[in-house]
Amino acid sequence: MSKVIKLKDIRNDFDSCLEELLNLCSQDINDVNNQIIEKIDSNVELVKKIANYIVLSGGKRIRPLLTIACTKMSGYGFNINEKRHIGLATAIEFIHTATLMHDDVVDESFLRRGKPSSNELWGNKTSVLVGDFLFSRAFQLMAKDKSEKILKLLSDTSVTISEGEVLELSNDKDPTISEDTYFEVVNGKTASLFSAACQVGGLIANIDKRKQEALKVFGTNFGMAFQLIDDSLDYSSNSNKLGKNIGDDFKEGKITLPIILAYLRANNKEKKFWNRTIRDLNQENGDLEKAQEIIKKYNCIEDTLLRAKHFSSIAKDSLGTFNDNKYRKILLQLIDSSFSRSK
Amino acid sequence: MSKVIKLKDIRNDFDSCLEELLNLCSQDINDVNNQIIEKIDSNVELVKKIANYIVLSGGKRIRPLLTIACTKMSGYGFNINEKRHIGLATAIEFIHTATLMHDDVVDESFLRRGKPSSNELWGNKTSVLVGDFLFSRAFQLMAKDKSEKILKLLSDTSVTISEGEVLELSNDKDPTISEDTYFEVVNGKTASLFSAACQVGGLIANIDKRKQEALKVFGTNFGMAFQLIDDSLDYSSNSNKLGKNIGDDFKEGKITLPIILAYLRANNKEKKFWNRTIRDLNQENGDLEKAQEIIKKYNCIEDTLLRAKHFSSIAKDSLGTFNDNKYRKILLQLIDSSFSRSK
Repeated sequence: MSKVIKLKDIRNDFDSCLEELLNLCSQDINDVNNQIIEKIDSNVELVKKIANYIVLSGGKRIRPLLTIACTKMSGYGFNINEKRHIGLATAIEFIHTATLMHDDVVDESFLRRGKPSSNELWGNKTSVLVGDFLFSRAFQLMAKDKSEKILKLLSDTSVTISEGEVLELSNDKDPTISEDTYFEVVNGKTASLFSAACQVGGLIANIDKRKQEALKVFGTNFGMAFQLIDDSLDYSSNSNKLGKNIGDDFKEGKITLPIILAYLRANNKEKKFWNRTIRDLNQENGDLEKAQEIIKKYNCIEDTLLRAKHFSSIAKDSLGTFNDNKYRKILLQLIDSSFSRSK
Repeated sequence: MSKVIKLKDIRNDFDSCLEELLNLCSQDINDVNNQIIEKIDSNVELVKKIANYIVLSGGKRIRPLLTIACTKMSGYGFNINEKRHIGLATAIEFIHTATLMHDDVVDESFLRRGKPSSNELWGNKTSVLVGDFLFSRAFQLMAKDKSEKILKLLSDTSVTISEGEVLELSNDKDPTISEDTYFEVVNGKTASLFSAACQVGGLIANIDKRKQEALKVFGTNFGMAFQLIDDSLDYSSNSNKLGKNIGDDFKEGKITLPIILAYLRANNKEKKFWNRTIRDLNQENGDLEKAQEIIKKYNCIEDTLLRAKHFSSIAKDSLGTFNDNKYRKILLQLIDSSFSRSK
C-alpha cells in the first residue's frame, strides 16, 4: 500500500484540490454523472456507442464542478428539490464535449496527438454528427429547465465559442498574431464556457446583480489563467509524461502565448526560425530544443505565467463579493493550485 | 423576349408554385432575408465570409417559406407588430444550413459532387465551426423569442436530425437496410425539420391542439414525400441537367429508396451486382445503365413515387383541419407540384 501513498505524494496540488472539491460535491457530481448516462442514450446504436466513449472517457468534469460549486456558494442546491443545477451542469459538459469533438476534426494539413479520438475511430463525419447530437441534447436540457436567462447565456456562449475557434483557425500557424487577438481566442475556446458554467450557478440561485457579475468575472478570468497555464506547460520541463507530452504544441505549429511573446521579442534570425518551424511547419531534429532556448532567453514562460497571474488575481478578488464558506474557499484554492498543474 | 416565355414554359410546376408562394409572402421572406444578413454578421472576418457564402448562395428557402405560410394560415403575422415568425423562420434556415455544412464534411472514403462546398474552399474544420456558429445563432434567436414550447420543439428536432444522420452513416452503402429504417433516416434528415418549420407557425399563432397536430402531420409527411421524390429523380430520365446530374447518388453508393426496393426484389445475380456497385463501390462503365435497367424491371421508381404519394396524401388531408384560404391553397398545390420537380 505504500505505493498508493507515494502516488499521492507526487500528485500536484491542483489534482488534490480538484479531488477535495469532488468530495465536497460528491452527491451532486454523482447526480450529474447519472444524468449524463441517461442523456447519452439514443435509439441509434452508433450514437450511443460514440457518445459513451467520449463522455465517459474520464474528463475531469471541471466545468460541471464549477457550476455545482458556484450554485452552492450562491446558496442553492441544499434541499432535495433544488436540482436545477444537475441538468444544467450536464448541459455544460455536453457543450464542452461537443466542442472537443468538433475541434478534433482533421483538416488535410493537421497533425494529431494523444490517444485515439472519436474521429480516428469512427471518421470525421460521424464525430461531427455525434457532436451535434450532444449539442442538441444540451439545448434540450435547457428547454427543460425553462430559464430564458440561462438559454440566452448559453446560446451567446456557444456563439462566442465557435467564433473563437474560427478566429484561432484563421490565424493558424501565424506567430505574428497580437496578444489581444490571442486573448479573444482563449476567451472563445476556454474562458467563455468556464464563465457560463459559473454564471449558471448564480442564475439558478437568483443572487443579486453584483454577485452575478462577480461570477462572470471569476469564471472568465479563471478560464483565461487556466488556458495560459496550459500553454506554458507545453514548453516547461516540469511537465510529466501523463497525457500530453512536452513539445506537442510546437510540433503542431500551434500558436500559444509563449510563441507569440517569443516572436515579438525575437531578432531577425530568430524570427526566421519561428517562421520556418511554426508557419511553414518545416522542423528538424533539435528544433524543439532551439525553440525552448529562445523561449527561455526572453522569459516567455515566466511572462506567460505572469499574464496568467494577472487573470487569476482578478478571479480571486471577484469572490470577495461572496461571504466566506467552504465552496468559496475551495474555489480560491483551485485557482492558486492551477499554477502547479502538470500535463 | 420569346426566350423568356420559353424558359418559363419548360420550368416545372413546383418552381412556379414556389414562386407563387414567394410572391404571396414577399414582405415576410424579405424580412427573413434581412434578418439572415443581420445575424450572419460576426466580428470574426472568416465567420462572416463563410456564413455569407453559404447562407446567401441561393437556397430555395423552402423551410422559412413553410414557417411563414403556416403562420399566416394559422391567422398570425398580418399586423405590423406580429413579427415572431421572422426570427424563428431565420432560426430554422440556420439549423438547415448548419446541417448542410456538417453533412458536407468529407470522410476518407467519400466522393464529392456539385459546386464547391465550403469545406472544399475553407477546409473541413472551418466548415464545422461555422456550422456551429449558425446553429448557435439559431438558439440565440429562440432565446430572444422566449417560447418554451418552440425551444423544446427545435431542440428535440435537432436531436432527431443528428440521430437520423448518424443512422444513415452507420448504414452507409448497405443496400440491405429495411424500408422502415430508411424512413427513420428520411425523417431525421428532411421530414423532422419540415415538420418543425410548420409547427412553429401554429405555436406562434396559438392555434388549438387539433390544428397544431395537423401542422405536425402536414410537415412530416410533406418532408417524407419531398425526400422520396428527390430519391427518384436521381434515376429518372426526366431529370434535367440543372444542379445534380442523373446517377450522382449511384456513383456515390448512396442508399435511397429505389436502391432498397431494387435490392429487395433482385435475384441472386442482381444482388451481386448491387453488392459490387453499391456496397463495394466498384463500378465500371455501363453500370449506371445496368442499375437503371434493374430499377426499371422492378418498377422501383414508380413504387418510390407511390410511397411518396402515400405520404403526400396524408399531408394534404391534414390541412382539412384548416379553413380554406390562399395559404392553405398554395400549400396543397406545393405538395402536388412537388411530383413534377426536376433536379
